Amino acid sequence: MADLTGDRIRHTVVFTLSHPEGSAAEADFLAAAGALSALPGVEAFQILRETSPKNAYRFGISMEFAGPAAYQAYNNHPDHVRFVNDRWLAEVSDFLEVDYEAL
Amino acid sequence: MADLTGDRIRHTVVFTLSHPEGSAAEADFLAAAGALSALPGVEAFQILRETSPKNAYRFGISMEFAGPAAYQAYNNHPDHVRFVNDRWLAEVSDFLEVDYEAL
Repeated sequence: MADLTGDRIRHTVVFTLSHPEGSAAEADFLAAAGALSALPGVEAFQILRETSPKNAYRFGISMEFAGPAAYQAYNNHPDHVRFVNDRWLAEVSDFLEVDYEAL
Repeated sequence: MADLTGDRIRHTVVFTLSHPEGSAAEADFLAAAGALSALPGVEAFQILRETSPKNAYRFGISMEFAGPAAYQAYNNHPDHVRFVNDRWLAEVSDFLEVDYEAL
């Protein structure tokens, strides 16, 4: 991951799946999410386990963009829109998006 | 920031202060939080602006630890305990802790 300077954005989301822990459906969702790393403008893509006992989220995704234009292009990319509509809305039971920029 | 491999932990917290935006009290709190970067075991320390329109948090802190022992030592360090008791509990109006490890 790069230092967040200038317009650089770190887009993160923590989430919980409706699938049982360790299930094939869980693995399939995470693999489909991983394919987002190939979309234009996506940098420092990571799928992570959320481990704090102070919240109920189980996974996280973190990625970075050079600036707002790259972030917007990702949001509007047909593959991203399709992933949100076909997988995220159907299989994610709870989530929170958190985006960071330099102070 | 390093890749999260093995036992490595990224500890993050998003928060909102009770102080007015851009106030001297806000700046003083962020400076005091920045001093936590000097505590033993703390790596890749960053104070960030939270910019997603999808949540109400305004700031974030991100740091990494080599593993659970370093994280625990930080949590128990007298300077951290003092910061939480004297500043965090008094000046933070809302927060969420999110911790990440390798999938």
